[in-house]
Amino acid sequence: MPLVHPARDQIRIETVLSALGHPIRLAVLRVLDAGGEYNCTGVLNVLGITARSTMTHHWRVLRESGVIRQTASGREFLLELRRADLDARYPGLLDAVLAGAEVDEARGRDAVLAGAEVDEARD
Amino acid sequence: MPLVHPARDQIRIETVLSALGHPIRLAVLRVLDAGGEYNCTGVLNVLGITARSTMTHHWRVLRESGVIRQTASGREFLLELRRADLDARYPGLLDAVLAGAEVDEARGRDAVLAGAEVDEARD
Repeated sequence: MPLVHPARDQIRIETVLSALGHPIRLAVLRVLDAGGEYNCTGVLNVLGITARSTMTHHWRVLRESGVIRQTASGREFLLELRRADLDARYPGLLDAVLAGAEVDEARGRDAVLAGAEVDEARD
Repeated sequence: MPLVHPARDQIRIETVLSALGHPIRLAVLRVLDAGGEYNCTGVLNVLGITARSTMTHHWRVLRESGVIRQTASGREFLLELRRADLDARYPGLLDAVLAGAEVDEARGRDAVLAGAEVDEARD
């Protein structure tokens, strides 16, 4: 059974936002955007995720929303970010989301460092 | 009991994306972004929504994600889009989302018009 992928003009923004509105799926976006060719296992290795079963749902949400394309390759699927389709349909959206994820991550690091300083001051 | 609003630096992008990843909440964003002062009833009137009970959940999701601020005013709540907070934290995100919602709406209109032409051609 071939996998379902929406055509570019079938993509809907609320479905894309909902797909990216989850920490694991947002992390997958960042891995794929950084470039390189990945299959599902490769992405999970980068993210350090071992619970493969819950990922089946996440791959489907990302694929059916139009965020990624999955292509059969042997026993696995190659994964590709549909950047050209998303940029054509929603200019600036992916870049704003990726930049926003970096902002959050940097702030999380700052908070951890600030916490470490507090701990040190307590010693 | 005062309503919970995250501070600007507590906002997380996956929560914002998830909040906006729903057609009704996206529609609320567009109404509030267009300006004017609204309470909950006012927004529902603009959108033609009569099922108020299901909206309680949507207001909470929008508020707790940091997208809107709700301020008590008499027996109602005034609603305000937290654009300054969101633009400061995620530059370009709201504009890209709002533009994307317009793209989808325009394409939907085109599809309806194309369907109408097909119907006319059939007469």
